[in-house]
Amino acid sequence: MTLREKTAQLVGVWVGASDEGGEVAPHQHEMEEPPDLDELLPHGLGQLTRPFGTTPVDPAIGALSLLRSQQRIAAANRFGIPALAHDECLAGFAAWGATAYPVPLSWGATFNPALVGRMAESIGRDMRSVGVHQGLAPVLDVVRDARWGRVEETIGEDPYLVGTVATAYVQGLERAGIVATLKHFAGYSASRAGRNLAPVSMGPRERADVILPPFEMAVREGRPRSVMHAYTDTDGMPSAADEALLTGLLRDTWGFTGTVVADYFGVAFLKTLHGVAEDWADAAGLALASGVDVELPTVKTFGQPLLDAVEAGSVPESVIDRALRRVLVQKVELGLLDADWDPVPGALADTDLSEPERLRGLVDLDRPANRAIATELAEQAVVLLRNDGVLPLDRPRRIALIGPNGDEPTAVLGCYSFPVHVGSQHPKTPVGIELPTLRETLTAEFPGSELWTVRGVTVDGTDPGGIADAVRAARTADVVVLALGDRAGLFGRGTSGEGCDVQTLDLPGLQRELLEAVLDTGTPVVLTLLAGRPYALGRAVTEAAAIVQCFFPGEAGTRALAGVLSGRINPSGRLPVSVPAHPGVQPSTYLAARLAQAGEVSNIDPTPAYVFGHGLGYSEFTWSDLAVDTAETGTDGEFGFAFDLRNTGGRAGSEVVQLYLHDPVAGVVQPEQRLVGYRRIELDSGAGCRVTVRLPADLASFTGREGRRIVEPGALELRIAASGSDVRFAVPLRLTGPVRPLDHTRRLHADVSVQGL
Amino acid sequence: MTLREKTAQLVGVWVGASDEGGEVAPHQHEMEEPPDLDELLPHGLGQLTRPFGTTPVDPAIGALSLLRSQQRIAAANRFGIPALAHDECLAGFAAWGATAYPVPLSWGATFNPALVGRMAESIGRDMRSVGVHQGLAPVLDVVRDARWGRVEETIGEDPYLVGTVATAYVQGLERAGIVATLKHFAGYSASRAGRNLAPVSMGPRERADVILPPFEMAVREGRPRSVMHAYTDTDGMPSAADEALLTGLLRDTWGFTGTVVADYFGVAFLKTLHGVAEDWADAAGLALASGVDVELPTVKTFGQPLLDAVEAGSVPESVIDRALRRVLVQKVELGLLDADWDPVPGALADTDLSEPERLRGLVDLDRPANRAIATELAEQAVVLLRNDGVLPLDRPRRIALIGPNGDEPTAVLGCYSFPVHVGSQHPKTPVGIELPTLRETLTAEFPGSELWTVRGVTVDGTDPGGIADAVRAARTADVVVLALGDRAGLFGRGTSGEGCDVQTLDLPGLQRELLEAVLDTGTPVVLTLLAGRPYALGRAVTEAAAIVQCFFPGEAGTRALAGVLSGRINPSGRLPVSVPAHPGVQPSTYLAARLAQAGEVSNIDPTPAYVFGHGLGYSEFTWSDLAVDTAETGTDGEFGFAFDLRNTGGRAGSEVVQLYLHDPVAGVVQPEQRLVGYRRIELDSGAGCRVTVRLPADLASFTGREGRRIVEPGALELRIAASGSDVRFAVPLRLTGPVRPLDHTRRLHADVSVQGL
Repeated sequence: MTLREKTAQLVGVWVGASDEGGEVAPHQHEMEEPPDLDELLPHGLGQLTRPFGTTPVDPAIGALSLLRSQQRIAAANRFGIPALAHDECLAGFAAWGATAYPVPLSWGATFNPALVGRMAESIGRDMRSVGVHQGLAPVLDVVRDARWGRVEETIGEDPYLVGTVATAYVQGLERAGIVATLKHFAGYSASRAGRNLAPVSMGPRERADVILPPFEMAVREGRPRSVMHAYTDTDGMPSAADEALLTGLLRDTWGFTGTVVADYFGVAFLKTLHGVAEDWADAAGLALASGVDVELPTVKTFGQPLLDAVEAGSVPESVIDRALRRVLVQKVELGLLDADWDPVPGALADTDLSEPERLRGLVDLDRPANRAIATELAEQAVVLLRNDGVLPLDRPRRIALIGPNGDEPTAVLGCYSFPVHVGSQHPKTPVGIELPTLRETLTAEFPGSELWTVRGVTVDGTDPGGIADAVRAARTADVVVLALGDRAGLFGRGTSGEGCDVQTLDLPGLQRELLEAVLDTGTPVVLTLLAGRPYALGRAVTEAAAIVQCFFPGEAGTRALAGVLSGRINPSGRLPVSVPAHPGVQPSTYLAARLAQAGEVSNIDPTPAYVFGHGLGYSEFTWSDLAVDTAETGTDGEFGFAFDLRNTGGRAGSEVVQLYLHDPVAGVVQPEQRLVGYRRIELDSGAGCRVTVRLPADLASFTGREGRRIVEPGALELRIAASGSDVRFAVPLRLTGPVRPLDHTRRLHADVSVQGL
Repeated sequence: MTLREKTAQLVGVWVGASDEGGEVAPHQHEMEEPPDLDELLPHGLGQLTRPFGTTPVDPAIGALSLLRSQQRIAAANRFGIPALAHDECLAGFAAWGATAYPVPLSWGATFNPALVGRMAESIGRDMRSVGVHQGLAPVLDVVRDARWGRVEETIGEDPYLVGTVATAYVQGLERAGIVATLKHFAGYSASRAGRNLAPVSMGPRERADVILPPFEMAVREGRPRSVMHAYTDTDGMPSAADEALLTGLLRDTWGFTGTVVADYFGVAFLKTLHGVAEDWADAAGLALASGVDVELPTVKTFGQPLLDAVEAGSVPESVIDRALRRVLVQKVELGLLDADWDPVPGALADTDLSEPERLRGLVDLDRPANRAIATELAEQAVVLLRNDGVLPLDRPRRIALIGPNGDEPTAVLGCYSFPVHVGSQHPKTPVGIELPTLRETLTAEFPGSELWTVRGVTVDGTDPGGIADAVRAARTADVVVLALGDRAGLFGRGTSGEGCDVQTLDLPGLQRELLEAVLDTGTPVVLTLLAGRPYALGRAVTEAAAIVQCFFPGEAGTRALAGVLSGRINPSGRLPVSVPAHPGVQPSTYLAARLAQAGEVSNIDPTPAYVFGHGLGYSEFTWSDLAVDTAETGTDGEFGFAFDLRNTGGRAGSEVVQLYLHDPVAGVVQPEQRLVGYRRIELDSGAGCRVTVRLPADLASFTGREGRRIVEPGALELRIAASGSDVRFAVPLRLTGPVRPLDHTRRLHADVSVQGL
């Protein structure tokens, strides 16, 4: 291959599929001129960027459009190599008409990795069916400051929860044949004051114990074939220029063999935003040397600047060859270099490709099977934070549905959903999926009730004019359903989402004013939240009759929420992020040392209103008969214990058993507790089970003074709990023997097994 | 010496001097039982803690009380060794009746290290005169999050400003013979979310480039004889257990030879708060091994637990001997082991010690010379943030003085001033110094004006009842002087001070409501702030006629402030911390990389309302005739340039020349700019001078990828500026030659010299 042919395999071009069945068209992105494909393609092309996630297009016609482009690409280069097509799939395939699943925070709330894995497999199958090869998900960033706009894209604030759920996602996507992409590697979520892309102040120990473990777990157990670098720098080192991270840790230590792709424009940002590269060539050389293989979304620094630099000898061709090898190996694995590489995606196999218009509607990306999974996820993700007994609602005569998210179809969607991410720029195009509003699902759920809907205020408006109407409605109702929360959007166009950071965790706009006015009426208030992050809920914590938290629950979300209100669904979600008591104490998460929590040395009490892991239901569970099998073991041993769990309530329900480890004395400061295992257990009314736990000493490991991961001997306490603060059994444990260094073959899981009683 | 005699030299006992001329009495501190001196003293005693800073006592009688205790201590042990007496002196000697100087943030605002040095020498002389040996100041913490309650104790948010001012303080105190104590070593100011003692998330590079440089400068140039460890952990490692910091860096690298003392209870906190020690003995052993020599304020872990541990062999006696040697060497240097160790402090030399009551009033700790320095500092520290022309006030007929700090004597004092720190617990004791309120100094300053004083709201109350009165007063006045700000206090008893952290940078209590109500009247508002931290000032930034910022300016503060309002004083202070535009964007300081500042990737704009270095005056300065002598030099070279500065205004005034370095491309991410030199220059009306700068390449150094301090070749820009954003000359510079590693003999200063024209 010529040098130009080699580098051509290392870049993407941003395209959008044609709604006419023509080829994908280069996309005019605000940061770049669209490239000239005639000029580019004879040398080959590494990737096609977002053929479906750029403009609304019927998926069957889009698949044809992509196919025609691939045929042209393969034909244009000497080797017949097609491009690898990637797209977003954060909470569903980001394509017109595709299922909008709940956002990752909701996955975290389910504490149900297996279900998330089924979702991912379903997403992957749909992507494959229209010719896409790689999906830019999941997000493994651990929440460190809830002000960050991308909190909705994360799975939560605990690395073990994030790691296990994300790994299931990776496995599901890869089972479907889609290249999963771990992102953002690493540290993005800890940007200063929650401001998108702001520098990360963090030492190597915190990074090793909080930020990196989900990636390690997903690499080792999920076998993803791609990783995306983070935009941010950590302690001055941008991830895209961090060889120790992208090569030393990821490949040499963890054994990753796939491709490292750039976050969009991230290589150019080494020059423009980070100031660690002199020019484009310098940025390209730095990224390649560090371990970035593919420039996305489009060619910028890996084009002529890189070619010139290699000619001039300032970038060695060896780093290009290394990246090329990874890219081509992946294309080989995907079958793209086979003589018979599947040119016609399965969905179109029996169609007449010459008449694009007749394809329209033939591909269904929101199949009933998808919708069933979306429903199951949404139902399991609803977190009941508070209930004074008002829920389930007992056939109320008059319901006042108040608030900006009461009758808003897209209130259930996150920023990376197609309708918000792309559709919002095409207001005349239909949304493509059914998005019933809460008003609609409440009407269906409470056929005997009179429903009065008042918006009151907009999500982030400044006009209080509608509050009086809301108060009037509240006064005459038996119960108020108050629908508050976020509007997802990009770069300041929403209250949650990429580039929509906040200064404090106060409810957006005038929603707190609306809440207080409605509470003042004295009518029982069921506060519901369709939101992308946790908010300080002020007086609602003590005065609302009930609080139901949903994190953008997707297309089935309002039905799940209405079902919880009616009692059709027994809520079983648990908080993947703490809900703060105050708007201004960020950064703060449950995963914190003693001195980060309430105490006598500061007047500020950061104790959350509702802690990580909290969630109520309509059933009762008793935990009993703890038997500790092994309470003392070597630093290479395993603890064992068992207990009974029984549903003593009147209906079937789920409990989430949570295991928190407390290490009272360690060589370096430890969090007060951290999650080391969990299991969601569903039990019929009256049914019970025996829960047996084997906890390897490896899970007590942390990064010690010398920067190595170790297991220290000494006392521990295992807290078997129903939430971060609702401890049912506190089991004293002891590790004996020498300090034991661990490597990256260490055990990562507690084994929590269940036997019926 | 017996083991017990050795350890006895490594501990303090918390005492308070007697107001009756008896011995100092063990102090009943909330955390400890008072020790039994009869039992302790035969073995000797290392330190006496806060003989003056514990209860109000006449200083002459206190000196006698201390003397009598020292005589008893020396007599009680076999070697005749007296104790070393230490006390607080953050913003003046923390003793009853001593001068209350401005707090360190005000020192920073003067940009006048020489004046701060004179203050420190004066403080030291007073301490020596009554028998104190060591002062627990200065604070070298660099502000990282203005929500922290102890911001008032810091010098500002730039390491170069902090380092130069603190070094002058150290030199002054040491010139007077007092052992200066650098604190808090290191990282305390970066505690999470500004909560006191909360863990610090920070990597080694940020620590080396932001937190440590002031300490290095003060150690190398100030020659302090003591250092106090910080309470906090950084990336999991508590400072008191950090051998690499307390020994490796401080002693082995920087050459420090004095004592490292514990922050109060800090050794015990290794067990109780950090969880890195199993028990008291473990905590003692860890602290000693790491390099803590003296346990303060009183004996806890270094007593019986340590003795037992040495007997048991778990702590080697060698670490005790090492600490003992340092303590005794210091006592020798102080003359405490001389046969004729000065038993009678100078102030009492000619008095009759047998009749304590006749001493009362003989020692004056607020001498006219002190007061002159306090006045000079206060005057130079007033920062005029905004002035639409209303200032100086032109003989207003009616002034409405509104706000909680208008008629409050202690509103000028910080948390470590004696009246706040101690006196507030003894409300019946007179304050001991004159503290005229702003009402009193305005009355004196504007004899021809009618002054109407209305409080409106309290500093942090929740009762808006008085706002209506304030509005009435504002409506009928020619001008409103609005006196807002903080009330200093300890652990939640104030709005600023140790343990008085805040959630956001909104003005405390209902002060924003008061501000807005008064602005709404349309009467011109001069907003004055007597505060411990910067606050978001909301509408005042665009609607107030003027804003005058004082950081707790001490006993001469309100007179200085009134003088600025009248025009008697031409304001010349510059902000040592940015004043934020929004209350919720913390942490944020001017010293930040491009991505920490405003940009397109986040909707949140952290640009401050008034940037570091900003301050207006009543004169005009022109900057002209820049001549660049050396714009290109080797990485071991020096840049040179000169320019003219002229006071073209109608009255004498001061300009602060500020040099900021911008490094566009570096091996690791750099702050957008950082202060590398400054000079306060006073010029008569019409006078001019030539300012010549020699800037060593060493000042362009930073901690590179490998963790070493280096000077890199390449382009730089020097911004010669009147504030962090008011750049008068942007000088392109270039460093040539190889990357140059630096060690701790590197040059630390730009040479800024001034010649009259």
